[in-house]
Amino acid sequence: MRIESVDFFYLSMPEILDIGDGSQDALLVRLQAGGYTGWGECEASPLPCIAGLVAPMSHSACKPVRTSVLGQRLDEIGDIARIGRLVRENSLDLLQTDHILSGIDVAMWDLMGKKLELPAYRLLGYERAYPKTPYASVLFGDTPQETMEKASHIRDAGYRAAKFGWGPFGKGTVQEDAEQLQAAREGLGGEGILLVDAGTIWYDDLARASQRVEALEACRATWLEEPFVSGALTAYKALAGMLRSVRLAGGEGCHTYHMAQHMMDYAGIGYVQVDAGRIGGLSAAKQVADYAQTRGVTYVNHTFTSHLALSASLQPFAGIRSDVICEYPLELKPLAWELTQEHLLPDSNGQIHVPEAPGLGMTPEPGTISKYLVDVEIRAKGEVIYSTPEI
Amino acid sequence: MRIESVDFFYLSMPEILDIGDGSQDALLVRLQAGGYTGWGECEASPLPCIAGLVAPMSHSACKPVRTSVLGQRLDEIGDIARIGRLVRENSLDLLQTDHILSGIDVAMWDLMGKKLELPAYRLLGYERAYPKTPYASVLFGDTPQETMEKASHIRDAGYRAAKFGWGPFGKGTVQEDAEQLQAAREGLGGEGILLVDAGTIWYDDLARASQRVEALEACRATWLEEPFVSGALTAYKALAGMLRSVRLAGGEGCHTYHMAQHMMDYAGIGYVQVDAGRIGGLSAAKQVADYAQTRGVTYVNHTFTSHLALSASLQPFAGIRSDVICEYPLELKPLAWELTQEHLLPDSNGQIHVPEAPGLGMTPEPGTISKYLVDVEIRAKGEVIYSTPEI
Repeated sequence: MRIESVDFFYLSMPEILDIGDGSQDALLVRLQAGGYTGWGECEASPLPCIAGLVAPMSHSACKPVRTSVLGQRLDEIGDIARIGRLVRENSLDLLQTDHILSGIDVAMWDLMGKKLELPAYRLLGYERAYPKTPYASVLFGDTPQETMEKASHIRDAGYRAAKFGWGPFGKGTVQEDAEQLQAAREGLGGEGILLVDAGTIWYDDLARASQRVEALEACRATWLEEPFVSGALTAYKALAGMLRSVRLAGGEGCHTYHMAQHMMDYAGIGYVQVDAGRIGGLSAAKQVADYAQTRGVTYVNHTFTSHLALSASLQPFAGIRSDVICEYPLELKPLAWELTQEHLLPDSNGQIHVPEAPGLGMTPEPGTISKYLVDVEIRAKGEVIYSTPEI
Repeated sequence: MRIESVDFFYLSMPEILDIGDGSQDALLVRLQAGGYTGWGECEASPLPCIAGLVAPMSHSACKPVRTSVLGQRLDEIGDIARIGRLVRENSLDLLQTDHILSGIDVAMWDLMGKKLELPAYRLLGYERAYPKTPYASVLFGDTPQETMEKASHIRDAGYRAAKFGWGPFGKGTVQEDAEQLQAAREGLGGEGILLVDAGTIWYDDLARASQRVEALEACRATWLEEPFVSGALTAYKALAGMLRSVRLAGGEGCHTYHMAQHMMDYAGIGYVQVDAGRIGGLSAAKQVADYAQTRGVTYVNHTFTSHLALSASLQPFAGIRSDVICEYPLELKPLAWELTQEHLLPDSNGQIHVPEAPGLGMTPEPGTISKYLVDVEIRAKGEVIYSTPEI
């Protein structure tokens, strides 16, 4: 069969708040081939992705992504990697490409799973899937009191692990950060797994990050995530050397397999957290999971959007029994929650299971797409080169 | 003064050919503040950059680039870095950001140079500029005969160095590549500096690249450029170990300072070739040049577009006396040639001089902009969020 269509749907809440909540909009990808439909999601800024899908060619290594996808043969699993290579070669100089490819790659795995009637993780080479322990992923409160209340609520809801990130953390004094961390620990109780996400707040400034080492050790954080941007390997490595029981985590900013590999080789991280919706889809994320195994690094999904994206993000490490922690966004906006008919809910043990249905096992809800669909039109060189597709 | 406007102009030849010639279109940036106008160029796919400039916010770390630029204070040199940090922080999750920022950063240096009546390289900290030896940068011919004729023509035109790249190289057999390399050496003569650009053709496949080692050594190439994509540090390092007199060169794919740093730290390159129009402008390129000095790596500009971009690309290493080789595109399309009133032509010694005029010292030609201007309109959420600005 050949890929007949690739459509991007830009969805958005009516109002976007200036907070670190990635569930306020979405870029949904629909792929059609041989009577099957595959769905994916780019965890990316929608409009630049749409533009890169359809942009006029600049030169031989800067083509619109769509030209390397439409009309391609998709008969076997190997075709997915071949199409990915073609996209990266033909759109080498289009920086947005990896984010665009991500949703398309996910949709190809979903489609092939439906054709072969197997879950995506089986197509990726795993014999079976193991349950994951979700951590509730929330933003720090504006005050320590608010953070403590959030943590208590998470504990009461039955979660054994929680991650606090962004918000005021890292922007104020060392003492303010210490109070936030202490509040999180207090609310979560002594037994809870506490994870901390600095959201690249120190860019590559080792000195500012290292001032927080004592507070992080004191609250017994399991990991400190993204003290720096993904490229700051030297700063990561130095900070890793200063920590005692806390490990570093990072990788969501990686948009290629190689970037994630470098974090494992040179940054001293203990947890690699790539986003399948950014790094090039399930294909690249599985490569990362495989390499992490050889380096003794724990793979954790990065997910802050819909349950379609959540299912996609679990597939690449579904079969790794020892890597049990998974990110589970707890404060989804209605758009992200309503996007799928199915939801991945914790079982009575508080664990999450990747769907055993074909592909991703998630069905987008047409009513939700209509409700949040953003009308976009791009004209260039005298033609309409993109307008919001029909559902 | 405050930044009053930031305008992107998408220029294109009427027809874009499917060849590795980056001069077929251009993304020109105009910045206005305090009665001064600065110009820059993004070496990037125009439409995704325009989209990223104006895209609706997705969340706090995924904002349109324009919001971090418009209205900002630009009173002193330090403001340029401050605005750059702001852009990268506010648009962290927008992958295209670094390419977008590049042209804006260049325009800020140009504008500040005009205000302070100094060439950009002086503002970057160099006391004086040294002449550079341009190499003629051309594509391999379709046949060895054609390549030999190109090389002879370059030698007859007075160039002491030539780089051949892309075209059929690396796509056929080892023997075909050897014949191309031999033809280039023959046309250039025994004394000419021969540079070879593989254009990432082997992605990260060490085996295929290593088969060309003997032919590269036999033709006495000074460097082999981009055998792999910028992220393939391990493959680079291994290939570097197999070469005897040939050195590796790379870096044009780097869109952050950190990526270039990693190539110097981990990939064993002898020449680092970043593009100021991709890596974040003069600011990031100067950081790369500084670091290269400490690592014994030679800095070489990457430039395949207009002389505005050429001037920008020379500024970051203008004051490094020992780094004399510079890329000089020889087959510019009319758009790229006609874009500026001034041109950087070789002197009687065959050397290139960075302009001593304020800023970049290059004046865009309004007639050229009008002639090649692409009409673009983007509508989203019921509004026109971009339309081609007035010149």
